[in-house]
Amino acid sequence: VTDGVGNVIGRSSASRRLLVGSHLESQNHAGWLDGALGTIYGLELARAFAEDPACAGMGIEAATWADEESHFLTYTGSKSFTGLLGEADIDNARSRTDGTPLREALEKAGYAGRKRELIEPSRYVGYLEAHIEQGDYLEATGLRLGIVTSIVGIWQYRITFAGVQNHAGTTRMAIRKDAGLALVKLANEIDRRFPEVTGERTVWTVGRITLEPGAPSIVPGRAEMLLQFRDAERSRLELLERTIQEMVGEADRTGPCGCTIETISRSEPVVMSAGFQEALERAAETHAPGQHIRMPSGAGHDAQLLARHLPAGMLFVPSIGGISHHWAEDTKDEDIVLGCQTLATAARIILEG
Amino acid sequence: VTDGVGNVIGRSSASRRLLVGSHLESQNHAGWLDGALGTIYGLELARAFAEDPACAGMGIEAATWADEESHFLTYTGSKSFTGLLGEADIDNARSRTDGTPLREALEKAGYAGRKRELIEPSRYVGYLEAHIEQGDYLEATGLRLGIVTSIVGIWQYRITFAGVQNHAGTTRMAIRKDAGLALVKLANEIDRRFPEVTGERTVWTVGRITLEPGAPSIVPGRAEMLLQFRDAERSRLELLERTIQEMVGEADRTGPCGCTIETISRSEPVVMSAGFQEALERAAETHAPGQHIRMPSGAGHDAQLLARHLPAGMLFVPSIGGISHHWAEDTKDEDIVLGCQTLATAARIILEG
Repeated sequence: VTDGVGNVIGRSSASRRLLVGSHLESQNHAGWLDGALGTIYGLELARAFAEDPACAGMGIEAATWADEESHFLTYTGSKSFTGLLGEADIDNARSRTDGTPLREALEKAGYAGRKRELIEPSRYVGYLEAHIEQGDYLEATGLRLGIVTSIVGIWQYRITFAGVQNHAGTTRMAIRKDAGLALVKLANEIDRRFPEVTGERTVWTVGRITLEPGAPSIVPGRAEMLLQFRDAERSRLELLERTIQEMVGEADRTGPCGCTIETISRSEPVVMSAGFQEALERAAETHAPGQHIRMPSGAGHDAQLLARHLPAGMLFVPSIGGISHHWAEDTKDEDIVLGCQTLATAARIILEG
Repeated sequence: VTDGVGNVIGRSSASRRLLVGSHLESQNHAGWLDGALGTIYGLELARAFAEDPACAGMGIEAATWADEESHFLTYTGSKSFTGLLGEADIDNARSRTDGTPLREALEKAGYAGRKRELIEPSRYVGYLEAHIEQGDYLEATGLRLGIVTSIVGIWQYRITFAGVQNHAGTTRMAIRKDAGLALVKLANEIDRRFPEVTGERTVWTVGRITLEPGAPSIVPGRAEMLLQFRDAERSRLELLERTIQEMVGEADRTGPCGCTIETISRSEPVVMSAGFQEALERAAETHAPGQHIRMPSGAGHDAQLLARHLPAGMLFVPSIGGISHHWAEDTKDEDIVLGCQTLATAARIILEG
């Protein structure tokens, strides 16, 4: 069935069923595998299980989730399927590219009259999702398969600096309250101090900096930066949060500009099912002995939403050069085949289990 | 006469003539004195000299220059008057606020058919301009009049960082080429090293920072900052330029991101006429003994263009709190009166000279 937000979900009449899929769209101007790979694996597994007499009674329901990449909302499809998306959320959503209301886009696509499917946890043994790694860890270590242990939590903050906007020619350096300079100093200090408190796989990013008014001859009166960090351990995320809050407090006290921090979002790290990790590892060892590793996922995935209701597992295949969200995104043909074989074997282990 | 770019220039039939004025518009949402003060002083001097039998043979031609504040072009009116503005420049100019072509704005204002006035240097003994200081130096030192010695040169640069845009969750810190972080480090280094090579009144500003694509979950692949510095001494400007070029070269060599610098503009510092400085100082000593000082102008003014053709002088009155380009811009009533009296006396000293 295709549902009211564009999720496409297969149906099997087998008695034991596994939900297998990934997401529908990628970013604009992005590559050919992000989302599509795991979706096609789902279809391939559904066909293979249906055709194989040895798999009698075992069914794969292939699924693909709409708008994982936040064209309208974040994880639109899997949130809808897991009951986290209200009608009002849909009413208010617009395309981040061109402002089209989501309602209008659904109407145009012919989904407007349809029911939105809701998860029935008792229907499934669990959820499996395969995805490209989108990083270079597998490639750099010469491995071919990653068994996801957890999906990192993403904590995001807006840090704002309040100075005094002034003429860049007539305002002496000594009396300036330059919000841009205050921002630069804090960002530099983050770069110096974060490595003391981050873990091996923690990542942190200042993705946006804005100075106001942003003119060459005006001392910035206001500045803002977006800071994000990711880790698979909640305790690590908490330590990083305490550290940035301390640094912001210090910057605010020592002046000359005010400095405040505001939390934008905090997603929980999600642990994958231990049994599914074992099944994936056994399958990986069958098809590529010694060429697999357990690893956390630095990116968010629909699996983190499904994992609230079902045992869930994820499998990664290598991304050449670690590239994703770009037309150059690619994976070796033999790794694409290996990933599908491994996922099928894992699905069978799980359904037989 | 009102001319073809909106300059308004008075005419006197006296035999010795001084051009006295300032500019017409201020910034959008700015104050009531920037430009207007010196324009009104010009009118007041023209009236006073015309009425005073003691000033027979001495004439003030009041002038106000269009668009000093770069709504369409920089110093549009005084550039036109001093022969630096071609018809093609006008053809190509558009409003920085709403994109209206300058031709259309001139048409609407009724100036389109008019001739653009051109300076006849032999017509004038020189040019005088009064202006609010737009800084807090006079206020901070308890003085009431500033005699401008020179108008600073403004040198502007675009510094660009080329990294690799990547996923902020899956790209390990060790392999990132984060253009935003490279920018932050250079900006911090400028703050550390510039004070070693700047003079007492040098000012420098990073007014704009842009990270691309500027999304919270993407490692910036490209970053750009606008750097500007101002000083009254050419040798100091050259030293600062060598310093930033060295720093950019260092950043580029030590990586991980490429770093390049591009000159946007370099305006020459302009020295005010020594004779006019003396006349202004004598006048200031008459009206406010001991309450005046010679000082450079940190802001650009139309006088720097007129000074290419005529002896030129400038007088500053204090800005309360150093504020300008803001509705709170103000000067004490008694200082406004004092400035006009001083300018009139200086004009008389010059015209009698």
